Amino acid sequence: SAGPVAAIVRELRCMCLTTTPGIHPKMVSNLKVIAPGPQCSKVEVVATLKNKKEVCLDPEAPLIKKVIQKMLDSGNKKN
Amino acid sequence: SAGPVAAIVRELRCMCLTTTPGIHPKMVSNLKVIAPGPQCSKVEVVATLKNKKEVCLDPEAPLIKKVIQKMLDSGNKKN
Repeated sequence: SAGPVAAIVRELRCMCLTTTPGIHPKMVSNLKVIAPGPQCSKVEVVATLKNKKEVCLDPEAPLIKKVIQKMLDSGNKKN
Repeated sequence: SAGPVAAIVRELRCMCLTTTPGIHPKMVSNLKVIAPGPQCSKVEVVATLKNKKEVCLDPEAPLIKKVIQKMLDSGNKKN
């Protein structure tokens, strides 16, 4: 699966081994972008879905920007 | 301060009461975008800085997109 590894080892190594290719912005309850650091040399994107599952996304996929934009815009509609 | 409220109440209400206007992408170790939901009717953006501080950012600020883009791009340079 493309889920991140268990929480307990999160700070010690990369969280994402594989990525999920497609995801609908409406399914995402939160999205985390983790900069490269001592724990992992690459940037990682982890989405928590509304069904509580966590999936890793490809930071280089154009989809990411769409998902982030949709999330940022979702506040505008409600205000 | 523009920090999010304590972790223990995070799931029960909005995390961000105020937002920090400017932040340098290089200072950000991770960034979380939280979609509106039962806990909060607005989208929230929380950045964890390299100094371990957490700050809230304005989801409508153009800066956010720049910060996110810089973070996503930072992986490319290292690969």
